[in-house]
Amino acid sequence: MDEMFIAVISGILGLIFAFFLVLYVLKNDEGSEKMREISAAIQEGATAFLGREYRILALFVVAVAIILGFIPSLGWLVSLSFVFGAICSALAGYIGMNIAIRSNARTATAAQKSLNHGLRVSFRSGGVMGMCVVSIGILGLSALYFVFGSRPDFMTILPGFGFGASSVAIFARVGGGIYTKAADVGADLVGKVEKGIPEDDPRNAAVIADFVGDNVGDVAGMGADLFESYVDSIIATITLAMIAILPSIKGGMPLVPDERVAWYLPMLVASGGIVASIIGAFLVRVGDKPEMEALLTALRRGTFSASILTAIFSYLAVYVLKADLGIFYAILAGLVAGVLIGESTNYYTSYAYSPTRHVSEASLTGAGTTVVRGFANGLMSTFAPIILVGIAILVAHRFADVYGVAIAGIGMLSTLGITLATDAYGPVADNSGGIVEMSGLPAEIRERTDALDSLGNTTAATGKGFAIGAAALTALALMLSYSNAAGIKVSEISLLDVRVIVGLFIGAMLPAIFCSMTLTAVGRTSFAIINEVRRQFSEIAGLMEGKAKPEYGKCVDICTKAALKEMLAPGLMTVVAPIIVGFILGPLALGGFLVGAIASGFILAITMANAGGSWDNAKKWIEKGNFGGKGSEAHKAGVVGDTVGDPMKDTSGPSLNIMIKLMSIIALVFAPVLAKFPGLL
Amino acid sequence: MDEMFIAVISGILGLIFAFFLVLYVLKNDEGSEKMREISAAIQEGATAFLGREYRILALFVVAVAIILGFIPSLGWLVSLSFVFGAICSALAGYIGMNIAIRSNARTATAAQKSLNHGLRVSFRSGGVMGMCVVSIGILGLSALYFVFGSRPDFMTILPGFGFGASSVAIFARVGGGIYTKAADVGADLVGKVEKGIPEDDPRNAAVIADFVGDNVGDVAGMGADLFESYVDSIIATITLAMIAILPSIKGGMPLVPDERVAWYLPMLVASGGIVASIIGAFLVRVGDKPEMEALLTALRRGTFSASILTAIFSYLAVYVLKADLGIFYAILAGLVAGVLIGESTNYYTSYAYSPTRHVSEASLTGAGTTVVRGFANGLMSTFAPIILVGIAILVAHRFADVYGVAIAGIGMLSTLGITLATDAYGPVADNSGGIVEMSGLPAEIRERTDALDSLGNTTAATGKGFAIGAAALTALALMLSYSNAAGIKVSEISLLDVRVIVGLFIGAMLPAIFCSMTLTAVGRTSFAIINEVRRQFSEIAGLMEGKAKPEYGKCVDICTKAALKEMLAPGLMTVVAPIIVGFILGPLALGGFLVGAIASGFILAITMANAGGSWDNAKKWIEKGNFGGKGSEAHKAGVVGDTVGDPMKDTSGPSLNIMIKLMSIIALVFAPVLAKFPGLL
Repeated sequence: MDEMFIAVISGILGLIFAFFLVLYVLKNDEGSEKMREISAAIQEGATAFLGREYRILALFVVAVAIILGFIPSLGWLVSLSFVFGAICSALAGYIGMNIAIRSNARTATAAQKSLNHGLRVSFRSGGVMGMCVVSIGILGLSALYFVFGSRPDFMTILPGFGFGASSVAIFARVGGGIYTKAADVGADLVGKVEKGIPEDDPRNAAVIADFVGDNVGDVAGMGADLFESYVDSIIATITLAMIAILPSIKGGMPLVPDERVAWYLPMLVASGGIVASIIGAFLVRVGDKPEMEALLTALRRGTFSASILTAIFSYLAVYVLKADLGIFYAILAGLVAGVLIGESTNYYTSYAYSPTRHVSEASLTGAGTTVVRGFANGLMSTFAPIILVGIAILVAHRFADVYGVAIAGIGMLSTLGITLATDAYGPVADNSGGIVEMSGLPAEIRERTDALDSLGNTTAATGKGFAIGAAALTALALMLSYSNAAGIKVSEISLLDVRVIVGLFIGAMLPAIFCSMTLTAVGRTSFAIINEVRRQFSEIAGLMEGKAKPEYGKCVDICTKAALKEMLAPGLMTVVAPIIVGFILGPLALGGFLVGAIASGFILAITMANAGGSWDNAKKWIEKGNFGGKGSEAHKAGVVGDTVGDPMKDTSGPSLNIMIKLMSIIALVFAPVLAKFPGLL
Repeated sequence: MDEMFIAVISGILGLIFAFFLVLYVLKNDEGSEKMREISAAIQEGATAFLGREYRILALFVVAVAIILGFIPSLGWLVSLSFVFGAICSALAGYIGMNIAIRSNARTATAAQKSLNHGLRVSFRSGGVMGMCVVSIGILGLSALYFVFGSRPDFMTILPGFGFGASSVAIFARVGGGIYTKAADVGADLVGKVEKGIPEDDPRNAAVIADFVGDNVGDVAGMGADLFESYVDSIIATITLAMIAILPSIKGGMPLVPDERVAWYLPMLVASGGIVASIIGAFLVRVGDKPEMEALLTALRRGTFSASILTAIFSYLAVYVLKADLGIFYAILAGLVAGVLIGESTNYYTSYAYSPTRHVSEASLTGAGTTVVRGFANGLMSTFAPIILVGIAILVAHRFADVYGVAIAGIGMLSTLGITLATDAYGPVADNSGGIVEMSGLPAEIRERTDALDSLGNTTAATGKGFAIGAAALTALALMLSYSNAAGIKVSEISLLDVRVIVGLFIGAMLPAIFCSMTLTAVGRTSFAIINEVRRQFSEIAGLMEGKAKPEYGKCVDICTKAALKEMLAPGLMTVVAPIIVGFILGPLALGGFLVGAIASGFILAITMANAGGSWDNAKKWIEKGNFGGKGSEAHKAGVVGDTVGDPMKDTSGPSLNIMIKLMSIIALVFAPVLAKFPGLL
């Protein structure tokens, strides 16, 4: 039996599981007329945005496909693979979001019954996204293998799939990120700060745009993001094995004995992760006390079990395929490092620990000190992930050479099916709380959805941490593959070569420029939203008194247009920069460029994600009655910190993950061309 | 005639010029009894702090000297050189600050006569620092040459001098930076924000501490910082020539023909810069209209003339020594890149241009958007410096190989005598304004000192930009020297070696951790100051009404103790980190570590300096009556931005310059030991 069928079967199994989750979610009731109405408005806005976004992306994808087709060393099959990757990514994001927007009101209704019910609906809705991403990923790669696997130029075709997925991801993440944070910041600054009305108050014109944003950014954007991580890590490992490891020898015996193992091993490890995630998902259940502790324990039981199962399955895969046992240790190194990075992220962002409580305390002396303290916290939080990834790299390398580095990335991402579920459930819970607020349900229901939301923030922070770590490993593996594909010798790409150094400096700068562009885009868009909400409050008579309704559509429209426009520049820059560097400064400089971008992107991404998470929770800690509680001066300072952190943690930070992988995979795609071209300088 | 005597003569010339500047400054009147009293309080606080700081540093220096002495491959002459470097650095900082604290009241008095008079006193006081730094630097290096130059192990002894200078610099910069910003932020947050009293109001208990801070941080700290940059760039160039270039051949003829040229050339270029700076200083004069334009033109005339003269002198030096003409182009590349980096910094931080005005505009929607916009601005401002330094490296390398990269750093720093004068005059002008305010002089005098201060902010921003660029080049040259000294082959230190990559990741992380520590230290200290000022306002009867005096000494004491305590951890971490990485991960990883630290430190330093400058000036732009003017909501948001930027631009950012050079020179000092030690892993 061909072991690849195990991958196909696990992919199909994942889809079937997702299908049952969909059935479960949809059989729940959407609630009152009012709730249906809000839900319909969210669905309309989100679907319209995604439709317009995908139309723009289609143009981009077609244009790039044509260019790729005409490049002599690449050709039309690379184009085809690229388009296929883009479609798979868009599909995963679309399905996931489609279920998420249908789950908001259903979660709100379920929470009326019990907390456990609310958790079940929202978590299963997140599970659809998790399962779709991993299943479509593994099935897409299998399809490529079955169709083109026997061609001699397959190693040129395969990276095209990742390039397609990454291209969709960067635009989806940036566009969605701008949308969600512009709406969020805009709604908060006028509503909470200026007018003193609660969050998600129906009088706020930006509130529907805010809900829509959560879906297009935190669900569809994140889905595309992690789809990319997942397939890129597998592609990087396969490519590295095929072009670099197979001819090499470790300790007298081949590390990866043949091409079949090069393909099967990563696919089987990923398959094991899917099955482990499904089993883990069944273990997530909770009683009816809205205690963070119990909820967190429930989710952790799921993810930890999945991790342990994945480790066991990976061992079996290595054993069955008769691969070197060192590879298993490499996978384990990645898996363990991922879990520990998640824990360290939790330590720096949860208000249960001193770093975030210090940020809350700093708000006693105003917004300035709050911002500085949170930022310092974010910077400090880079220590553990860098050291953990460093150790994982060294361990993986010791046991399985560079191949170990690549497959450690798969290890870190293997439980994505369930970790993504715990991530994607967050925005659903958040929105369900909004719907509870807007439709005037009793406070105890809001308390339940708040508990779910709060848990979502914690799991989102953990999820971000390990997504960044995995991105760094994956990008590194892609960079190693690129170097091999471009024919760069180990002795050539020296840190004493000034072109490599200059490339590295430029690479290290690019994530900063990228962040600047995305932060500015959020600022500009939220500025427009703020003015629109202010205008509606001053021009619509009776709005503040609740006698008139705001024009929600206006804000949705502003966000949609702005996000689609603002996503282009940072996205295109990311696509074009490695190509320019490669052709002007040469392939060696491009290698330096990638390493610089990975290091700097890794550090900036962690800083932004954790500083943002820390400000958010520091504010929540104040709201729980500390340092003066809600409405105090300290609270106002905390809200400023949260506003600063919002675009950092939900727009710029996560987009950096995609950025470093996209640039690396572009280098890999263009490696055959660059190998023949020494650079203009 | 030995050309080294030209260096000695120019050094002595610089000291004589500094002496005349001192005479000029001191013959000015200190003003009224009240002004003398304030001035005496500042002198007392500053001298006491520096005394205590130097005592702690003496312990550190002695301890390190003993350790160096006992290490087999280093020995007691390295210790001696280290101690000598530390003493020279401390001396330069001490003399410069000593004159600065005597100039505050004198500038205030001179400004009563005319703006031109005020500029002359403050600028000449800054000139003392500028001249002392370059003269002591060049004389110290000459002394080392004359005493030890003929020894075979001189190339091991020489870096010790830079290590000593860098060690003093990191503690002085961090300690001074914490002192000045804690006092500044503390004074502002209670005085301006909570109590609504003007800046520098005598009722504010932290106001004297704030003045003291400007002197110990922005004068003494900066002096030590740039002394280090200056001597390190020369040491890096000499070392590179002696251990790497001399045996190599370029285009059939030696790039640097012999050892004498290796020594004389950098010293002569630096000497030319001293003479050019003296001439340039004479060209700084202005009429009596307090127009920014005219003041800026006056300073620019001085610095630009000095740049052109330096270029001419450098050409002569290359010509006279019969060195390769390519070296001249490399120097020119550094010089031009430095000037352009200064211009780009000015563009991003001055309110004359759109980036900073956008930050002002963002304050219309609150503190959160102000902070985000300013931070985005800082990130974007990394583009030009990175590209300019990249071009300078490539040009310098094309014309003069790696030697070109090193000497381009000297080119960038050669006009330090005058650029440091324009920098060091800033805090003097700032304090003179404070004295005007505290002693109740008429508003028109304050207007004049404000014009001087505002100009100082612009030149400080420009100066910071080129100091960072020069730091990157110098650190890079030191890293190249380290690699040679440690016996690392070009083909060995590959970006495909995972140890190099892990080292690079750790190196890239360290500046973030360093910033986090210093930002937190400022936060903690200003927290203590805020509580003290608040306590005095509430406990001292009649303070707010001006009937009682605050206890200034308490705040001075808090700052002194806290700064001395808080400077230890980041300073020691910087010293220890490269040694740990080198001995655990090996010399190759240390090379990667240095490159990672340089790239990330460069980017973080520019971001922090320019974001900080931009917030500061955005606030000033609002205060000039834009977007609501003083007292408006926008202004309050602007003040928050400024508070966030303060520790970034005056504590963390500039300390990063020293950090990357210190780590590089430590690697160079320990290279002979590391060459015999492959690393534990």
